[in-house]
Order: sequence, then structure tokens, then C-alpha cells
Amino acid sequence: MTDAFDEAMTAVLEVVEPTDAERQELAETVDRLLERTEAVVADLAVDADVLLVGSTARDTWLRGERDIDVFVRFPPDLPRADLQRHGLAVGEAVLPDGRKEFAEHPYVTGEFDGFGVDLVPCFRVERATEIRSAVDRTPFHMRYVREKLDASLSNQVRLLKQFCAAIDVYGSDLRTEGFSGYLTELLILEFGSFRGVVEAAADWQPPVRLDPEDHGLRSFDHPLVVVDPTDPERNVAAVLSEENVARFQHHSRQVLADPFGFRFAPKEPEPLDTATLESHLERRGTTAIAVRFEAPAVVDDQLYPQLRKSLAGVERELERQGFEVVRANAFADESAVLLFELATGTVPAVERHEGPPVSVREHAADFFHTYENADVYGPFLDGGRYVVERQRSHSSAVEFLRSEALFDAALGSDIVPALEAGYEVLVDDGVTDLCPEFAVALARYFEPRP
Amino acid sequence: MTDAFDEAMTAVLEVVEPTDAERQELAETVDRLLERTEAVVADLAVDADVLLVGSTARDTWLRGERDIDVFVRFPPDLPRADLQRHGLAVGEAVLPDGRKEFAEHPYVTGEFDGFGVDLVPCFRVERATEIRSAVDRTPFHMRYVREKLDASLSNQVRLLKQFCAAIDVYGSDLRTEGFSGYLTELLILEFGSFRGVVEAAADWQPPVRLDPEDHGLRSFDHPLVVVDPTDPERNVAAVLSEENVARFQHHSRQVLADPFGFRFAPKEPEPLDTATLESHLERRGTTAIAVRFEAPAVVDDQLYPQLRKSLAGVERELERQGFEVVRANAFADESAVLLFELATGTVPAVERHEGPPVSVREHAADFFHTYENADVYGPFLDGGRYVVERQRSHSSAVEFLRSEALFDAALGSDIVPALEAGYEVLVDDGVTDLCPEFAVALARYFEPRP
Repeated sequence: MTDAFDEAMTAVLEVVEPTDAERQELAETVDRLLERTEAVVADLAVDADVLLVGSTARDTWLRGERDIDVFVRFPPDLPRADLQRHGLAVGEAVLPDGRKEFAEHPYVTGEFDGFGVDLVPCFRVERATEIRSAVDRTPFHMRYVREKLDASLSNQVRLLKQFCAAIDVYGSDLRTEGFSGYLTELLILEFGSFRGVVEAAADWQPPVRLDPEDHGLRSFDHPLVVVDPTDPERNVAAVLSEENVARFQHHSRQVLADPFGFRFAPKEPEPLDTATLESHLERRGTTAIAVRFEAPAVVDDQLYPQLRKSLAGVERELERQGFEVVRANAFADESAVLLFELATGTVPAVERHEGPPVSVREHAADFFHTYENADVYGPFLDGGRYVVERQRSHSSAVEFLRSEALFDAALGSDIVPALEAGYEVLVDDGVTDLCPEFAVALARYFEPRP
Repeated sequence: MTDAFDEAMTAVLEVVEPTDAERQELAETVDRLLERTEAVVADLAVDADVLLVGSTARDTWLRGERDIDVFVRFPPDLPRADLQRHGLAVGEAVLPDGRKEFAEHPYVTGEFDGFGVDLVPCFRVERATEIRSAVDRTPFHMRYVREKLDASLSNQVRLLKQFCAAIDVYGSDLRTEGFSGYLTELLILEFGSFRGVVEAAADWQPPVRLDPEDHGLRSFDHPLVVVDPTDPERNVAAVLSEENVARFQHHSRQVLADPFGFRFAPKEPEPLDTATLESHLERRGTTAIAVRFEAPAVVDDQLYPQLRKSLAGVERELERQGFEVVRANAFADESAVLLFELATGTVPAVERHEGPPVSVREHAADFFHTYENADVYGPFLDGGRYVVERQRSHSSAVEFLRSEALFDAALGSDIVPALEAGYEVLVDDGVTDLCPEFAVALARYFEPRP
């Protein structure tokens, strides 16, 4: 007996499960790829083996995905430089048209018979707790999931991955701050089905802690903790943001309430056109200010945390200067943008500065004498305290953001030189200059949904 | 051996101590006044006696003061209406050109041989704790001070009264919220001299509690508590505001630090002219808004508390509407004014409204469904919460103050009809319309000192 939810998911699977033809093509390609890689590895002066990893190896890939991840494992005592040298040599031999990418180690990514392939070197350590590089864990995750995940659960993982993609929380990179493939697999193992996961999530009261192997050794300050079955000291959900946990909960309730109506197809918002942006600004009555500069040439995993840090730093500084920030966000593409919406673009020329209670004689006397003949309003009394009204350094937010004082804010280390190289400050209708580059990001900002 | 402080106070006394001629004139006038009053009282159908009270009776009056307070005491079991009738009859007979004033009872005030006289009826109760009307205490205070205050202390009281007058804290009326004459006398009794009082006050850490007769029966939530020697349940300093205690402490330190430089002569600030007011507004960069209306015809002891309540009420309402109040004050003369300085006269058309954390399933779902199809921005997620941005009811402070919404503020009961009869809202340079009526009050506001 199936109910509406199951029926709806069957319909989703009809779209996301790979076809037989796809499976066959993948299987044959993987065979050829592994064969070629093993041949290259056999010629190395060092002992190494080849391992297929990733969702293609676990049968949890989605229809249309054409990505194959192959790891080449080297002895754990190999010097790091040798691993990198051999790893690149293998990669270049297997994927002659590939290009170098940089994670913790360089690796080669390229095309092989129409599939995208990552060829990644790692250390073949004994235990996941002994890793020398972050990717060394992957084979352990691979083995754990292959052992635990019954073939009947593959499609449940597919539903969960598709769901995460649809709600924009799929990916454990530091831009997305979402769910890794491994995390979705562990959740399916924990709750038995996609439905089990969303039913549980709908009622989560973060912080939530799951420990499949019941071996966790420490606590974490994260909204969702899933202790890694291969490493008792690691939270698989460490990068997942509080907001994305809330988003996951929200949409879990939505899909349970209306499984047929839920949209499993990811959909970007319509780009915001200039006229619509202007009408939003008009309707909101805020002062919109954008700081735009050339995005520093660093990978997204470095860029986005730094942008968020800089956004928070400038926001704190604006608030400290008396400007109330209604909302703010950071975007990046060719250029990077810190966007602030302020309650008002100007504040009074004076700001209230409270002194100590008059009764605290020594401090009070110091305060009074400091300001007694200064160019301020006061000192006067308000209740039991001395108060002065001092001249502010900046009464215009734009002027503040254009000044050197901007650099008093806590900024990301690569953001500082990027700003030093030059930036522009766009105000109100000037913010429309962000279209079309950021028209989609602006649509997300001005037409926000959970 | 005298030091600088004593020398300076001697010089002050040369100005504030009554001259021999004054004393003689007063003594003769008092004799004639009491004689006439007693003659009138003797003809009454009810038993009553006559009592000289006030600073003239205690020899603590200041040079130039020409006020005499005479009480007529009636039996404590006399019906209230009879006391009022007889009291007024005596007053009208003694002071035929006098006029009725209203405190708790009506009484007669008028001129007698060049002196101002208050002729006040009261009940002759057994103990101060048994009073039927507030003025019934006065004879007990009178007796206590006459018994305790040695003639050598009269001048110390005079210094303290003059000091309080100079710093604008003399008077226990609800406009001043300062020190009563009786309170200054008790402080001199407690600390032995004017210098003793200011030395103690300079180090006060409010709340401060004094209990001369060590018989206090209850606690008070006041910054200064002086338990009434004639009533263990009463704080003589009950109306004294926290700010005036701080003011007293501040100036106590000032007079100790520079006794010769301290100005004992009360001095009103120069009235603010229109040009100076404009330059203050320009320099401060605030949005100044005044609500002006006809002052309700009530006594100051009712008017000022109601004005303060209304000021605080409207200020709270402005803040609730998103307008940051930099400073505010209320003035009254023929008209009454609530003056607000705002950080900005307009706020965005939208305001942030935070919902519950998404994890609180039932409340979160209610919030989401309430706003899901409403004319708001969102619901969207911020951290773990739902947020919407709603349309504000007022984005202009002036428009808000001109609207019916003003009456949502907590207002004094006599202020409501006064505003209902009509009010005007002055903005920025329009505030100069308050000159000249409030030119002195505006000087205090825009050139504030402790």
C-alpha cells in the first residue's frame, strides 16, 4: 500500500534515477578509466593503488551526472612532494587534456570519453584518524557507505540529494555551507528513507546530535552534529550553517505537507531587471549602498568566508557609527559586492556619549574635567549620569565608506588588498549598476524566500 | 583659624543673611499679623489657635524674602467642609485683598504691610502620623526644627538653601523635584554645617538613607531617603529626582573645589535668540520636532508630572515606530511643548519583524502561513529564524505626530483633552516659533550644563 508521499517520490525517481543506458555507459567508461589508470600506476617507481570513489562508485548518482572520481593511493610515509609529483604524473598521463586544480594538493581534472574525471592522489593511511591530508578520508567514507548502504537505499539517497539541490543546500563547500553527499548517505542510513529523514528534520530542535557508531569523543558547537563513523572526533555536518539547517527543516515540512506540489527541480530566480530593482528600492524606502571591487583571485572556499567576515565587519562598523543596517549581503562574480541597506544614509552630527554615574566620584570627576571645556554639548545630567553630545567623525554613510575609516572594519585578509586596489560606492539608484552581473543575486535579495 | 571655604561662606552670608532692619520689620509685622489673626479666630464659633510657621518662624529665611506663613489649627474631629469654611473666613477677614488658592484645601494668600502672607487652615492632630491633610504635618516639622536647630545653625541652613537655589534644586514642588526647606534643615542637623552636608554629598553613593531619629519603619525606592523625624513612614526627600541628587553631588564637589569661584546667585541663562537656535539645529544635524498646544489650566504640581509622562509616552511611541530620539524635553508657559530631537525624521517604509525559530514547529508554521501570501518581503530565513519585512504604518515622524496615532501614546489625563483641542507640529527651523515664549527653556536645552 502506497500513500501520496510515496507516489510523489516514485514520480520524482522517474526523473532522477539514472537510465539503464546511462548506467551501462558509466560502467563501461569506469572500466576503461580504471584500466588505463592502473596501467599508468603500475609503471610508477612507487607502490600505489587505484580506487573508484564518489557517488558513481556508490550508485547514488543522479541522472545526467557525468562525474567520476578516481583516487590514487600512495604509501603513508611518502614525502608530500613525491605524492604531488607522482599524483600529477598519473593525472597527466590518464587525462592528457586535463588541467591542474588546487585543493590541499594539486590534482588533475579533465574529460574522459565524455565524462568529467577528477584524478586525486592521497595517502593510504591505516585509519581515518591518521590522515595526512583532508582527501585521505574519502576512501574510508567510501568503504563505510559501501558496507552499510543496501542497494535498496540508493534511491532514497537520490531523493535526498535532489531535495537538497532543489532547496539550494547541496554542497559542503564554504560558499554553500550545505550537505555533502556523504552526509546525505549517513542521514539515509540513520533514518532508513528520505521520508524518514524529512519527518525527523521537521521536528528537529537544534542542536541535534547523531552518532551512528556511538563513538563520539567530543562536543561541537554546530546546529547539526553527525559524528563521522570513521572518525570519532569529526562532525560530518561541520560546515552546515544554522540557516541551512532551518531551510532544510522548513522544506522538510513543505514536502511532507504537499509532496506532489513540491518542486524538486532546482530553479534560479528570474534575474532582476533595473526597473524592478528601482521599484523595490522605492517601495522599501531604505538607503541602499554597495561597495564594489574586483574579486580577489582566490578559490571560492577562501573567498566566501572572507566576504562574509568583511560584510559583518563593515556592518558592525556602520552600526558603531550610528547607521542602522536593515539588511546586508555579499555577492561575488568577476567583481565582489558588499551590499547594505540602511535605515538612513545620514545621522546627526552629534552623538550621545554617556559618562559614569555622578556618584562614582573619581571616574565622574575625570569625565567632567575631560569634557568641561571641550567642544561638545554638555557635560549635562541625565538621571544620575553625566552625558555629553560629541561631534561624530562621519554623519554620512557614503562618506564613511569612501574614507580610510572603512579599513578600521574587520576585513578578510584577501579583501583588504582588493579594496586597496580600488572600489566604488554605489548609492540608491546607482545600485542598479549591479545589474546584470548580479541580477540573480539581487533577485534572491529583493525577493527573498526560505 | 578659618580656611578658604569658611572665608568664602562668610562672604556669602554677608549677602544672604537678613539685615537687622529686615529682622525688625519682619518681627513687628509678624506681631501685628498674629494679633489680628488671633482676634479673628477668637470670634469663631469653633475652637482654633494660630501658629507662625515657615522659615521666618525658624529664623532660616534669606535676605529679601518677604513671606510669612500662618497656620490656623482646628480640632481634628471638625468636618472637612467646616474647616474649609472657617479657614477661608479667617483668611478673608485678615487679608481682605487676598485671593483663594487651592492645595489640598483652599486657603487665602495676600499682602499684609508689604509682606506676602499665606493663611492656611489645618487640623490640630495629636501626632504627625494621624494627619487628615498634608499641611497638618507642618506644625510638627515646625516644633521639631525649633527644638533641635540651635540658633548658631541658622546661617548654615541659609547657606544650604542659597546653594540649592543657585543650582536650581530648591523646592519640593513637582516641577522642581528638589529640596524642601525642611529637608535642608534636617540635612544641617545631620551633618552639623553646610560644609558637612556638601562634603558628605560629594561622596554619596545613592541610594543614601538617613534616619535622624532612627525610627524608620519601611524602605523606599528613592535615591535619597531622609526618614521624617515626625513620621517613621515618610521620606522627606521623596520628590527629589535622581537627576537632582546627582546635580547636588556635582555642585557639592564644585563648591568644595573652588568655594570663592562658586556662584551662589541664581542666574537664568540668556534667552536663546532665533539665529542661535538655528545654528544649534544646523550644528547638531538632528531633526527637531515640537508638539505645541495650549497648556491645560491645572496647577504646576499636576501639570509637570503629566507633561513628563506624556513626553516619555510619545518618546516610547516614536521609538516603537523606529524613530531614534536623541534628546527630548517638555516646557510649559501659556502653551505647553513636547520637544523631540530625532536622529532622522523619516525611516524606511519597511520594518523587520522577526518570527520564531524555525525549530519551534507549531509557532514557526503559524508565522510562515500568516505571511506566506501577505504583502511583505519574505518570509525568509535569517540564521535559524523566519523574518519578514512589513510595511510600517508611519515612515515620517511629523506625519505620525500629526495623526490620530499620537493618542496611542501614554499621555497625562489633562494633556489628552488639551491635545484634542488642537496642536501644532513644528519642524526644524519651524521650532524657532517657540522663541521668545520658551527662549530661556531652549537655552537650557541647547546649552545644557549640570
